[in-house]
Amino acid sequence: MRFSISKFDEGSKARAGIIETDHGSIQTPIFMPVGTVGSVKGVFHRDLRDDINAQIILGNTYHLYLRPGLDVIRSAGGLHQFSSWDKPILTDSGGYQVFSLAANRKITREGVVFKSHIDGSKHSFTPENVVDTQRIIGADIIMALDECTPYPCEYAYAKKSLDITHHWLQRGVDRFRATGPVYDHQQTFFPIVQGSTFKDLRAQSAEFISSMNCEGNAIGGLSVGEPEQDMYEMLEVVNNILPADKPRYLMGVGTPVNLLEAIALGTDMFDCVMPTRNGRNGMLFTWEGTINIRNEKWKKDFSPIDPSGTSFVDSEYSKAYLRHLVISGEMLACQIASIHNLAFYLDLVRTAREHIIDGTFASWKPTVVKQLQQRL
Amino acid sequence: MRFSISKFDEGSKARAGIIETDHGSIQTPIFMPVGTVGSVKGVFHRDLRDDINAQIILGNTYHLYLRPGLDVIRSAGGLHQFSSWDKPILTDSGGYQVFSLAANRKITREGVVFKSHIDGSKHSFTPENVVDTQRIIGADIIMALDECTPYPCEYAYAKKSLDITHHWLQRGVDRFRATGPVYDHQQTFFPIVQGSTFKDLRAQSAEFISSMNCEGNAIGGLSVGEPEQDMYEMLEVVNNILPADKPRYLMGVGTPVNLLEAIALGTDMFDCVMPTRNGRNGMLFTWEGTINIRNEKWKKDFSPIDPSGTSFVDSEYSKAYLRHLVISGEMLACQIASIHNLAFYLDLVRTAREHIIDGTFASWKPTVVKQLQQRL
Repeated sequence: MRFSISKFDEGSKARAGIIETDHGSIQTPIFMPVGTVGSVKGVFHRDLRDDINAQIILGNTYHLYLRPGLDVIRSAGGLHQFSSWDKPILTDSGGYQVFSLAANRKITREGVVFKSHIDGSKHSFTPENVVDTQRIIGADIIMALDECTPYPCEYAYAKKSLDITHHWLQRGVDRFRATGPVYDHQQTFFPIVQGSTFKDLRAQSAEFISSMNCEGNAIGGLSVGEPEQDMYEMLEVVNNILPADKPRYLMGVGTPVNLLEAIALGTDMFDCVMPTRNGRNGMLFTWEGTINIRNEKWKKDFSPIDPSGTSFVDSEYSKAYLRHLVISGEMLACQIASIHNLAFYLDLVRTAREHIIDGTFASWKPTVVKQLQQRL
Repeated sequence: MRFSISKFDEGSKARAGIIETDHGSIQTPIFMPVGTVGSVKGVFHRDLRDDINAQIILGNTYHLYLRPGLDVIRSAGGLHQFSSWDKPILTDSGGYQVFSLAANRKITREGVVFKSHIDGSKHSFTPENVVDTQRIIGADIIMALDECTPYPCEYAYAKKSLDITHHWLQRGVDRFRATGPVYDHQQTFFPIVQGSTFKDLRAQSAEFISSMNCEGNAIGGLSVGEPEQDMYEMLEVVNNILPADKPRYLMGVGTPVNLLEAIALGTDMFDCVMPTRNGRNGMLFTWEGTINIRNEKWKKDFSPIDPSGTSFVDSEYSKAYLRHLVISGEMLACQIASIHNLAFYLDLVRTAREHIIDGTFASWKPTVVKQLQQRL
């Protein structure tokens, strides 16, 4: 993996860069659609590539490990082959889903033991075996095992958890460096900053993570319920420490406004289920603000879903038609809203990037943030 | 509407024809995907048009009447406008869903009174108002209100029911002829032959329906549980009576083999939820036979879903990947299977048509029927 920065914004810490992988390049800042079990819910890979213009997607190690399982993925020649996606893939370590989905989980310094949410079978994730698993999945970017602390979180717990996360990181880095790719493309490894909402812990974690000298770094444990201001403060502390010449990935974030604010703070990569999950519930993100398409006011609004949208659904379907499909519980509603929202997220980061390159990002952002916060 | 027959098959009663409507022409024999509430479940209209090559789709009057309701559809300028589908649409009368879905239904010579399955609200369908409703929906082909008898059915009930169906038909035809289209395209009206599995009632009904001199005729009340042989026998009786120079539409049928047998008996139009409904359950129809993609045997079969399939999904995705998505309950599985099955059904009738035109239909059919009946 190579990362180069094309332009630093003068009015903020935003940067426009390019990540190059064996599966193609990624223009940053970038949003990565979440492809849980190897499919972005409700979206054909063709549309992800040609309509949404996704440059990289995520896979969830926890889900993929349980279903279809490593045996199938390895036999297929990796997740790219298995799922027919030839652009870059990033996988999380599986830790987050173990903490949020699995039953009877038990964390020790050794790792985490848990029961599958599907059939109750017992499994164990260690810093080493999640690297091995992600080697087999074949992700271009693989993530360290960490504990994502909940919010609110006692200082003592956050400190103790951070100690385990750092211990796991060293073991993960060691395993990554002692092993090679399973298929014929290179893989890279990102460590994750934790530390809850405590500035000193975040700083300490960012220092430790930086010292690992990996090709990119991630920030986890944010957007888990804390006030947005806390998230931005943590991000500022962390981004001031993480090396400027490496991509910074803010995990699981967030709203369109969150993305712009985090970009202004020097963040380069994002993923979130919000565009697809909220889309399935009838919430649309647009440049003019958010739309709850279930509202009565759209019942006879036969105007296009989003006249300034980039997806084919934006001009092909009307708000009234989409509302009808949502109210009727039709699958097509989920498909239309998901594709619209993902195309919007990609348009958002692409436009932000253009403004960074033009040198107009700092003046553009406040106006757009105001628009994005409107409810239509 | 105009119907012309390009070729009569010499070895059977099959015919290849063309139906011309104000929304374009339809090459028969044709299969019509079912667009229940104005959307074919899980399929974008773009893919319906360009990938599946659908020439006409169905809408369900009962569903559309309840949601979004006639007020919205009329305001939109009809269902074509509302749902962004500019090719032909056929709507059923709503009767079938009243009998299968609605609560507290009560049939009289006047019509049928029922309660909505959605909110329990009370409604009434009459032979006249279902014509008015379909005028407002704006379907190119609109259907008469009938009672679809269940199977098995006592002779006395079938006879009494047929009497009501014929009474309703006369009133429906009168209403249709006394009214005009609501929008700027022509509409046509098809009556429906009933009579359960009784040859004399079927013959009597076909005679009465023919006497209405409509531009096309439908056959209802088949594929409701009776042995397939009974269905073919009824079809033979009915098709011998219905005028040969008008399209014959067999409602709600069926499997690929049913279609070929019915085509051989002189039937021109079909609709069925089977390709989408069975697809959502993991059943795929192919030229080589049916596939239950949930079977363990496909777990590591990384070959394309259907090498001879015409849809983009057939070559883009593997059987193993689709199986994984079905087992995982992913929405994308429903989308892939639906689009595959619909594309196959359209390929089936298109190929049958080519063989009719080539004069090879009678020799081709038995071989294909044998293949289609295999379970892979």
